[in-house]
Amino acid sequence: MHDHSPHMPPAEFERLGAELTRWIVEHLDSAEARPVTAPVAPGEIYRAFPPSPPLEGEPLDALPGELDRLVVPGVTGWQNPNWFAYFPCNHSYPSILGELLSAGLGIQGMLWNTSPACTELESLVMDWSLEAFGLPDRFRTMPRDVDGPPCVGGGVIQDTASSATFCALLAARDRITDGVAGRDGVASCPTLVAYTSEHAHSSIEKACTMSGIGRANLRSIPSDPETFAMDADALAAAMHEDAEAGRVPFFVCATCGTTSSGAIDPTARIVEIAKRYDAWVHLDGAMFGVAAICPEWRWTLEGGAACDSICVNPHKWMFTNFDCDLLWVADRTALTRAMGIMPEYLRNAPTESGEVIDYRDWQVPLGRRFRALKLWLVYRHYGLEGIRRAFREHVAIAQEFADMIDAEPDWIRVAPSPLSLVCIRHRDGDERTQSVLEAINASGEAMLSHTRLHDEYVIRVSVGQTNTRLEHLERLFARLVAFGREPIQS
Amino acid sequence: MHDHSPHMPPAEFERLGAELTRWIVEHLDSAEARPVTAPVAPGEIYRAFPPSPPLEGEPLDALPGELDRLVVPGVTGWQNPNWFAYFPCNHSYPSILGELLSAGLGIQGMLWNTSPACTELESLVMDWSLEAFGLPDRFRTMPRDVDGPPCVGGGVIQDTASSATFCALLAARDRITDGVAGRDGVASCPTLVAYTSEHAHSSIEKACTMSGIGRANLRSIPSDPETFAMDADALAAAMHEDAEAGRVPFFVCATCGTTSSGAIDPTARIVEIAKRYDAWVHLDGAMFGVAAICPEWRWTLEGGAACDSICVNPHKWMFTNFDCDLLWVADRTALTRAMGIMPEYLRNAPTESGEVIDYRDWQVPLGRRFRALKLWLVYRHYGLEGIRRAFREHVAIAQEFADMIDAEPDWIRVAPSPLSLVCIRHRDGDERTQSVLEAINASGEAMLSHTRLHDEYVIRVSVGQTNTRLEHLERLFARLVAFGREPIQS
Repeated sequence: MHDHSPHMPPAEFERLGAELTRWIVEHLDSAEARPVTAPVAPGEIYRAFPPSPPLEGEPLDALPGELDRLVVPGVTGWQNPNWFAYFPCNHSYPSILGELLSAGLGIQGMLWNTSPACTELESLVMDWSLEAFGLPDRFRTMPRDVDGPPCVGGGVIQDTASSATFCALLAARDRITDGVAGRDGVASCPTLVAYTSEHAHSSIEKACTMSGIGRANLRSIPSDPETFAMDADALAAAMHEDAEAGRVPFFVCATCGTTSSGAIDPTARIVEIAKRYDAWVHLDGAMFGVAAICPEWRWTLEGGAACDSICVNPHKWMFTNFDCDLLWVADRTALTRAMGIMPEYLRNAPTESGEVIDYRDWQVPLGRRFRALKLWLVYRHYGLEGIRRAFREHVAIAQEFADMIDAEPDWIRVAPSPLSLVCIRHRDGDERTQSVLEAINASGEAMLSHTRLHDEYVIRVSVGQTNTRLEHLERLFARLVAFGREPIQS
Repeated sequence: MHDHSPHMPPAEFERLGAELTRWIVEHLDSAEARPVTAPVAPGEIYRAFPPSPPLEGEPLDALPGELDRLVVPGVTGWQNPNWFAYFPCNHSYPSILGELLSAGLGIQGMLWNTSPACTELESLVMDWSLEAFGLPDRFRTMPRDVDGPPCVGGGVIQDTASSATFCALLAARDRITDGVAGRDGVASCPTLVAYTSEHAHSSIEKACTMSGIGRANLRSIPSDPETFAMDADALAAAMHEDAEAGRVPFFVCATCGTTSSGAIDPTARIVEIAKRYDAWVHLDGAMFGVAAICPEWRWTLEGGAACDSICVNPHKWMFTNFDCDLLWVADRTALTRAMGIMPEYLRNAPTESGEVIDYRDWQVPLGRRFRALKLWLVYRHYGLEGIRRAFREHVAIAQEFADMIDAEPDWIRVAPSPLSLVCIRHRDGDERTQSVLEAINASGEAMLSHTRLHDEYVIRVSVGQTNTRLEHLERLFARLVAFGREPIQS
């Protein structure tokens, strides 16, 4: 069957699969020995490859060596234990196996009918996750009891929180306009206004841009100067003012873990205020929503139970390969009415029966991968307790790091850091803080990123790579202190 | 390091990796022995799993058996050679290895700076693909010559053509309104109108819904009754009428391979007409764009060279795992102006230098996987000639199947089928045609899907699964004839 065929013989796949599995282990085990920042100039990786695709197929026997030579120099160390930039985007061996399986099965789950297992295992891990994070049954996808009434809410895996938030905003837009915004366009509606904290993620602004609402109709609500959490009174005032002026408040995005400082907005109060206007409340738990898996941090999602939608990101801290964002909605019809399509060529009996979920109507794209496998394997391998143990270790070392900072006069901790993100600045001010960040990143010993809080340059130390231990933070601390005393590089 | 750790030891990963690689081979080799349609009832897969996530981690030793028992019954046969439904979504061993590598590396390529290799290998395979499909240098991402002037256009890998088309429509919307639509909202703009063929994909309508343009402002242009390609004169008339009425034609989507019949729109003429109004022309080559890799089918993308954007889907026919859609734009600034964001926490020196691409600004989500690896390995393993050989075999057997239909009085071929999609109906009419489709799908021997053309129920026979050979089409033909003569099941 494979003679003279252009396709790869199975034996070669098995051999290369074993080699690459071994290569991945070696690559990850040696991560710490490589610079965290990729030491390449723009264009360097591109120019190392031939300028044209091969006319005839080439053997892949030398692949491990090629990867080391051509690709790895341009790989930034997200899986290096000295990774403290942006947010964790960690992974785990069980999750990698899940991606391998998903690729091997090669199904496309746009409809229930195009792979019931893809849809139903996804519904399952979404329901498992509700239990894991202590969220209520109103978000369930399948009834607990096989004979129970059909669920009104439900959950779906999205690629990212950006997409999840966009879907939530569209559902909100079409709910408040009774579908007019999607059908006749935003121009046929009264002026719709969205609200989020000044520290919310840029994806809220992008969602307003993409949806035709317009970024100018997103109100940036001030935050508490100590906690950086949204000022609920300011929200109430802004919504009131818009409503008085004849505009329609339709969407509020609360954040559980702002990018800049990890602040947790007062979601319960936000819901209370938003309800006066029938505005949709979305809780963006991309950064810290998964912390709720530990009972002692369940407060991070407080108020979430009453929201219209919530998303959290196992692909950040929870050992699940990017991409895996979990989105729940309390009213699935609001979502599918905004996102649904039904051309003739996709009609099928299970869909018409109304007994199944077609997740294509819960997202932007039509097609979808079998993402549930990786999350299923993460739950299977770790169990809830295994994940909790790993999270607690990360938070414990982040707290030790916060203590080191608090005991060091040169450095100032600038925001509460109850979990795994610690924001700091040098007492000498912006120039010094920035130069330390740049020196550390240039050294390749660690990677850091920054933000601005109270208009000051701030280094964010985000802990969460799978293998980060106290020793890595001790080394980072020593570098911060040392570089903070050197002459500033210009 | 791994003692008492909740993480999986590397040796276990290597062992399970080898087992799952072997399992994938056996699963694919035995695909033909399983029903193509998944013989499960709604809820059956979900209910076979425990209702709650495990509290403590569980060994994964029994995984292969669990997959066979719990997951495979709900797997629809996209990789079964008797798959003729919807479109091919084939894959290949090199591509699966690419997904494994991407998962193992575990990087997130939102910025050039967060993994230069992810961005630059993507730019490389996009430029390779221009050569592969005979598209012009105006879509190049990196200059041919290292010292050449910077490129104006460029390419990016999207998850799906739905997302690619949505990005193109947003770029068009914000180009014609000089950014007002994104900033102040669609309500601040004149009435914007989009155009596409009545046979275009549902994602165009969805893009109009999501963008706030409104589905009502999408004109469904009639098609030629013989070829089902867009009637360019009707397009010209519709655009003229809207412009005369003070509305603003801003976006035309031409299709290379409509879902219903594989029709190829007259893109060159469409561009000529659209240019009168400065409307953006997007060529949706999701279905048949990749055929242009063969010189004899390069005509399928005719006119594409002059479009504002084009997308094609290696994840359909071209042995590359879903998801892998290639989107090119002639003016990258139009795209990044519509999709770009720059919060403080993502600022970095390479971005500010303007010398690098940050692909987050070329797509809906912020984060992104290392998708280029799988396409790179497909090109490496097959070479252009290997892909061509496989495509030619698929088209040759599809043509033989078309000949069988033409020689069989019971069945009528209802549309031109120059490539790998053959649309047929039974001479007895809709009820008979539908009953044959349902009988074949219920038998599990093959999977078919349908559409409506000239308001008649039509079976679409889409050829392209990696291992489909003539014998599979001969068997399908025999079943069509046999079921077509049996009493209709009600």
